[in-house]
Amino acid sequence: MRFSAFFFDGVSRAFHHRPSFSKLVVILTASGGGLVAYADSKSDHAIESSQVAHKKKKVVVLGTGWAGTTFLKNLDSSLYDVQVISPRNYFAFTPLLPSITCGTVEPRSIVEPIRKIIKKKGGDIKFWEAECFKIDPTNKKVHCRSNIGTNLDGNGEFLLDYDCLVIAIGARANTFNTPGVVEHCHFLKEIEDAQKIRRSVMDCFERASLPYLDEEERKRMLHFVIVGGGPTGVEFAAELHDFVSEDLSKLYPTVRDLVKISVIEAGEHILTMFDRRITKFAEEKFQREGIAVKTGFKVVEVSDKDITMTNASTGKMSVPYGMAVWSTGIGTRPVIMDFMKQIDQANRRVLATDEWLRVRGCDGVYALGDCATISQRKVMEDISLIFKVADKDHSGTLTVKEIQDVLDDICIRYPQVELYLKSKQMSNIVDLIKDSKGDVQKESVELDIEEFKKALANVDSQVKNLPATAQVAAQQGNYLARCFNKMKDTDENPEGPLRIRESGRHRFRPFRYKHFGQFAPLGGEQTAAQLPGDWISIGQSSQWLWYSVYASKQVSWRTRALVISDWMKRFIFGRDSSCL
Amino acid sequence: MRFSAFFFDGVSRAFHHRPSFSKLVVILTASGGGLVAYADSKSDHAIESSQVAHKKKKVVVLGTGWAGTTFLKNLDSSLYDVQVISPRNYFAFTPLLPSITCGTVEPRSIVEPIRKIIKKKGGDIKFWEAECFKIDPTNKKVHCRSNIGTNLDGNGEFLLDYDCLVIAIGARANTFNTPGVVEHCHFLKEIEDAQKIRRSVMDCFERASLPYLDEEERKRMLHFVIVGGGPTGVEFAAELHDFVSEDLSKLYPTVRDLVKISVIEAGEHILTMFDRRITKFAEEKFQREGIAVKTGFKVVEVSDKDITMTNASTGKMSVPYGMAVWSTGIGTRPVIMDFMKQIDQANRRVLATDEWLRVRGCDGVYALGDCATISQRKVMEDISLIFKVADKDHSGTLTVKEIQDVLDDICIRYPQVELYLKSKQMSNIVDLIKDSKGDVQKESVELDIEEFKKALANVDSQVKNLPATAQVAAQQGNYLARCFNKMKDTDENPEGPLRIRESGRHRFRPFRYKHFGQFAPLGGEQTAAQLPGDWISIGQSSQWLWYSVYASKQVSWRTRALVISDWMKRFIFGRDSSCL
Repeated sequence: MRFSAFFFDGVSRAFHHRPSFSKLVVILTASGGGLVAYADSKSDHAIESSQVAHKKKKVVVLGTGWAGTTFLKNLDSSLYDVQVISPRNYFAFTPLLPSITCGTVEPRSIVEPIRKIIKKKGGDIKFWEAECFKIDPTNKKVHCRSNIGTNLDGNGEFLLDYDCLVIAIGARANTFNTPGVVEHCHFLKEIEDAQKIRRSVMDCFERASLPYLDEEERKRMLHFVIVGGGPTGVEFAAELHDFVSEDLSKLYPTVRDLVKISVIEAGEHILTMFDRRITKFAEEKFQREGIAVKTGFKVVEVSDKDITMTNASTGKMSVPYGMAVWSTGIGTRPVIMDFMKQIDQANRRVLATDEWLRVRGCDGVYALGDCATISQRKVMEDISLIFKVADKDHSGTLTVKEIQDVLDDICIRYPQVELYLKSKQMSNIVDLIKDSKGDVQKESVELDIEEFKKALANVDSQVKNLPATAQVAAQQGNYLARCFNKMKDTDENPEGPLRIRESGRHRFRPFRYKHFGQFAPLGGEQTAAQLPGDWISIGQSSQWLWYSVYASKQVSWRTRALVISDWMKRFIFGRDSSCL
Repeated sequence: MRFSAFFFDGVSRAFHHRPSFSKLVVILTASGGGLVAYADSKSDHAIESSQVAHKKKKVVVLGTGWAGTTFLKNLDSSLYDVQVISPRNYFAFTPLLPSITCGTVEPRSIVEPIRKIIKKKGGDIKFWEAECFKIDPTNKKVHCRSNIGTNLDGNGEFLLDYDCLVIAIGARANTFNTPGVVEHCHFLKEIEDAQKIRRSVMDCFERASLPYLDEEERKRMLHFVIVGGGPTGVEFAAELHDFVSEDLSKLYPTVRDLVKISVIEAGEHILTMFDRRITKFAEEKFQREGIAVKTGFKVVEVSDKDITMTNASTGKMSVPYGMAVWSTGIGTRPVIMDFMKQIDQANRRVLATDEWLRVRGCDGVYALGDCATISQRKVMEDISLIFKVADKDHSGTLTVKEIQDVLDDICIRYPQVELYLKSKQMSNIVDLIKDSKGDVQKESVELDIEEFKKALANVDSQVKNLPATAQVAAQQGNYLARCFNKMKDTDENPEGPLRIRESGRHRFRPFRYKHFGQFAPLGGEQTAAQLPGDWISIGQSSQWLWYSVYASKQVSWRTRALVISDWMKRFIFGRDSSCL
């Protein structure tokens, strides 16, 4: 090794002295036994590092959204040979998408080129602007296709090998197969969607202003329908209302009174993921402002001019509309569906991973963000094994001490235990046992397996899927990058909880989501904020909190400055109404 | 009149007391003799002004470019019933289009919604976002078509009557019918074109960075060709070079050495409309920077991957390219061609107007900006009539005094006279006469018709078409608005020169273009400026002059602030390379 390093060093120096020679040199190394290397060397260490690179594991990252980008930003890229594939060469700060639909913020202010992020990191990360259209876990390959231009040689397809695959391609809009949605509705998932909506809003106003139209047609053109009363739909409705009342009503005085905004929600309320107080405030605010909130209505068909919906009491009804935005949740992308078929998950709706974000039954494949859900292992599935692990003296019963010895590991492995205790306002598991066994002395408690099962019987009710938010995806990306960075250290010193079904410890602690709260901007400089600990705030102060949080969370100083300057622009000059 | 005003006043007050009543009142005025008016009155003067409105002439303006918008901004809209038609609901500051292609300036920073401009003016100007597809001068109608959306009732067409028609719809790119240009080349006339170019440049870089491509293909993708060495093409080439060297070379290190920019020009030099020193400086600067300037090459065909051109010495040759921008001048739009056929101008290339911007042989139709040229009346065509007008004593000869009496009028009517004197460095017409008659005493000169003809024989060589620039269009818009505003005053007090073929004076002075100079940004913070009086400046100081002129010429404070902030952004953060 010493020798070969010395040898490389000499050869490299030779390259530098005779650069034209470098392209044709064939090196037979002493250690490599016939390894033929081709080097267009630029530094003395080029060959060594190229050898190291050959030993590095190939990590392929699919996607440059929240999960993929946070993973990349936190990954120690010197440890891996990293390649990133995405049809978009930028990261977009998606929580500001609704602001783009009405020009409160400009599209380019919330995007950061992925190559800039990579360059800032240093290290050798490669980016290919292409779409992965097939994952082949058997051969550890991904099939990619460039979607640029039409004048490609062949079909622009290529194959990449991987040792580790990080799937973070996000989700698509879920239409629930409602007829006409894809053809006639806008979605709000990508920057392009937001741009199209902006253009479409302006088109509706221009169209409604044309001469020789009857009143009905003008009204139809200016009926904006939002299907789905989730945070995105509600925020868009609020933005649109502000845009109309603050900017467009001055420029389109003849038609401003014909504008109508409707939010259609199948459930009983909008913003159901928020506290009841926020929902109520939002519904009342919308009502005051003339935004029609139609709850309990399910859209069953969309034609070019009408939206048909059903309601338990009124039955089927159609309303004419000018523009519709469909925002009812997310669905699985075709490439993931195909992948799920290959790994026996065809019967599931969403790709499942374990608590370490590993796709079950797939070596080296991780999935995070909106494209996957963590399927949390149930306590009751493992209850006998947990009992066995805890029962160190094999007495057939557990003492409080025995339980407490394994409690930390169990709480890490099964977070629902802790959540359950919290929900019952119990401070520790002894309270739970007391609760199940009746009032007993703390130290004298002994549980057999049936009593143990009974005590924990309802714990799994706390298992919930994580919401499909940027916050979750970013935390997952961060978590996975940390795992990748510490992969070697934890080989010898695992830091995870006790294994229940095998001996030893897990290498890492499972992923744990920490909720920092959520905002629901409601327009007119009013935002609802729900922070951990059920801390609710509604009004202008929350709007300023919203401004500061969203500014601070920007991915770079550039986007931060641009977003803030966009907000200032809007305050000073209003929003632009050009059909661009 | 007193009576009716009183009557109106009383009725109007009745409206105010009983607003619901206002929609059904039929008023028989004393003065109007059976005039039936329907008023949705809001002010005490509503009815009077509606009566006046009926008398107002209908002015229809086609286009919201430089000519149309300047006309609108300067028109006294209280005098006319104005309607504006344009497929774009905004005015764009087109001289900054090349800056948009590379993200130095953002598209929305250089556009101002036309409705905002109208609103600022006050008055009742109507705007319809539609395209005029047929002008019918016989019936004084324009046929328009809305181009918004697909779900239109019928075909979205409507008709508008006019009393005065102001055609300012600009021109389209001229392909000289070269095969493949429309299919494969970008143009640079609209905001959308610039946006497409920006996206396309990024696509070429991303495409060239893909794995498994051979070097030839990478080189091809990164060969950017600009056809046409005029100011637009040259500025785009310079912008692109800056974008590549300042921003992209850092983000695409593996392919940066493969980038090639070529400017193809059929003439002998680029920037031929500028002083020879500027041309030379530009050609040398481009050569230093590796921008290939291919002069004397005429493009004869464009395929998806190759551009074929011919050259007098080398003959036909093809070069592979990744992206091509076609910027070789302007052509006439189809609607204008059709209009020209109707008014016996079918044999012309461009729509001709007289010196007052009136379309010849069309009552009430004006054309300005890039869609028309002024066909200046030649002195030699009118020479006998001019002689007759000047020869006040009908002596058959002209004295110097007689000539000087009509000289001002002649110089106004035929600006080429003044230009010719200037070009010969003569201070007045007497010098010209001296020159033609030999050295004679000033006061004793007498000219017969033949001598007069001889003296002015070469004057018409100074007749030149105005360039198709924003400057010309804006001055024409301004001029025409002034004419419209003073139409009534000049009925009695014409302010124009003596009529030559009829008696009396022209109502207005003919349009006269005042050249304020021209810039050619050459990249790297270097701009060439050519100001009146052959004042040439090249370098960084001109770049700052360019910044200040372009900032000051912005149409509103909003766009001014945005453009300046875009320039600052670029200085601080560089240009964005996201494929948006």
